[in-house]
Amino acid sequence: MSLLNQTIARITPLDTKAMEEAQKRLDSLLKPQGSLGRLESIARQLAGITGKIQNKVEGKAIIVMAGDNGVIEESVSSYPKDVSKLVAETMLTGLSGVAVLGKFEGAKIKVVDLGLDGDIDNPALIKRKIKRGTGNIAKGPAMTRDEAIRAIETGIEITNLAIDEGTNLVGTGEVGIGNTTTSSAVLYALTKESLDLLVGRGAGLSDEGLANKKAIIKKAVELNKPDPEDPVDVIAKVGGFDIAGMTGCFLACASRRVPVVIDGFISGVAALCAVRMKPESREYMIQSHGTEEPGGKIIHKLLDMEPMLFMKMRLGEGTGCALAFNIIEAATRMMSDMGTFADIGM
Amino acid sequence: MSLLNQTIARITPLDTKAMEEAQKRLDSLLKPQGSLGRLESIARQLAGITGKIQNKVEGKAIIVMAGDNGVIEESVSSYPKDVSKLVAETMLTGLSGVAVLGKFEGAKIKVVDLGLDGDIDNPALIKRKIKRGTGNIAKGPAMTRDEAIRAIETGIEITNLAIDEGTNLVGTGEVGIGNTTTSSAVLYALTKESLDLLVGRGAGLSDEGLANKKAIIKKAVELNKPDPEDPVDVIAKVGGFDIAGMTGCFLACASRRVPVVIDGFISGVAALCAVRMKPESREYMIQSHGTEEPGGKIIHKLLDMEPMLFMKMRLGEGTGCALAFNIIEAATRMMSDMGTFADIGM
Repeated sequence: MSLLNQTIARITPLDTKAMEEAQKRLDSLLKPQGSLGRLESIARQLAGITGKIQNKVEGKAIIVMAGDNGVIEESVSSYPKDVSKLVAETMLTGLSGVAVLGKFEGAKIKVVDLGLDGDIDNPALIKRKIKRGTGNIAKGPAMTRDEAIRAIETGIEITNLAIDEGTNLVGTGEVGIGNTTTSSAVLYALTKESLDLLVGRGAGLSDEGLANKKAIIKKAVELNKPDPEDPVDVIAKVGGFDIAGMTGCFLACASRRVPVVIDGFISGVAALCAVRMKPESREYMIQSHGTEEPGGKIIHKLLDMEPMLFMKMRLGEGTGCALAFNIIEAATRMMSDMGTFADIGM
Repeated sequence: MSLLNQTIARITPLDTKAMEEAQKRLDSLLKPQGSLGRLESIARQLAGITGKIQNKVEGKAIIVMAGDNGVIEESVSSYPKDVSKLVAETMLTGLSGVAVLGKFEGAKIKVVDLGLDGDIDNPALIKRKIKRGTGNIAKGPAMTRDEAIRAIETGIEITNLAIDEGTNLVGTGEVGIGNTTTSSAVLYALTKESLDLLVGRGAGLSDEGLANKKAIIKKAVELNKPDPEDPVDVIAKVGGFDIAGMTGCFLACASRRVPVVIDGFISGVAALCAVRMKPESREYMIQSHGTEEPGGKIIHKLLDMEPMLFMKMRLGEGTGCALAFNIIEAATRMMSDMGTFADIGM
């Protein structure tokens, strides 16, 4: 059996018995029942994920999938392609948004080159390039089915390695100019929701640029005819290496029973792909912040998740995950350190 | 001049020149302009508060104002009065929600007894009791005008001391059974908004309890006739010692140019009182989380502030401030540690 199929097969539902025990503990803590809201639901979810009532965040990592997108030939982005490589480099040198926020929150940043159209000379880069950028989805498929599976499986492998090294809280990040276009195309192919509802301005398109982006996405889906019942086909035909790698990351975390944080829109599209492959994978995911991309709201609805943070952030990279890590760790401390009514003799 | 009037007189607008310089730095960082959203607006605000582009969080404290409320005779709370003292004790022994979250976030918790109807034997308690609980506002004023001013000034003194000790990020918390009733009464007196819009279930009232709470608030305001143009009069007649102390805390922070975080509904009502006394004090405040109390939305609108966190929390104590501290510190790190386009030769 392939690594992808093995991983999917290993994903099982949450441990409801542990969640019930966690709820008992939560209700014994010194507070009105339910009054710590999302901290309580996270603590319950973590119990379901690990099977333990008390959880400790031992290692945090944000896995950043990097790849270029051929569709930027169609002027769908306000930035040139070279910026993908530049941003990935600044992640490695500690200068980018996710590098700074990740360091502040005590998380490792693992940057994976799955498909950058350029080479980075830095030993910290995880070099797993499948191809130098995808094809232009307005003219043909992004990649072959085999390449899509390789990219997903690479995401699984890298995530499994991070977990083997002691990571027990994972964040998902990406870099790839043009990836709000490919993500919107994947979401459109999977849902057939109105393009007006799901396409946004990415890093900062004009009105004209936005209209062009919608037209290109429509064209890409009409031309490539991805099968909405087959997420691998959708990713291969209109997605990107970053979306594929993150999909693998979500599946790997679920198969290893490790909580995994959704960042913004692109990460959310990958989460949706994972859930379409295996619905139970959803239970291992935690939504960090509300994205400014309009498609984000559709994703939250489809995944039935509410963001915890509303930061008006639209940088991507995994920056929202870094902030969410602190909240998730706070939930574990609530569970382990708060007193109970019994402690004070009530 | 009284301490209260001195403090109010010292509050001046933000340093707009520093904010412009901060904006230049923000726009030079390696990201699309504005793409770090609220982190950027916080960094800009901190520059306006301190006059410095780069800020460092050196000391964090959550100042918790504790007091009992005579109105609980009217069955407006699902908890008995003794719980105020019990909760304050668990804050000092490290078992309460804010104690645990504050410790996790590296913040000191300073618990001030302004009006508990009971004595706590713990040297960590800041003992500044003005009276053993307020009067029942359904039958008369909560306190005299002199007592209200003393409570506000005590809040100012304690906050000034914390700042003298090195605190440069302040959170506001409270404990006092019945304080969503007094807070709703203050908000109703100040705004005359519909009681249906501003009164909620506090820690967990029934439908019947909620109807009674509204009736009591209406009665208290009709009986005591607080002057909506005079926040001290409103606090004295239908407020509480906790609201008074927190109002002092907000004013002191603004006068000392230190950022101060609003927690939930009760803290928001105190913030509104401070802003009504001196509109410029608003510029020193940062809203942490969205409260579940319906009056919270009215406060956010009146203060023109949007919460960053939506945690469905309704514990109070200052718990939302603890989580917000991490985000505020993240904003300072973004400002100091991210690279610029110039750094990478662009």
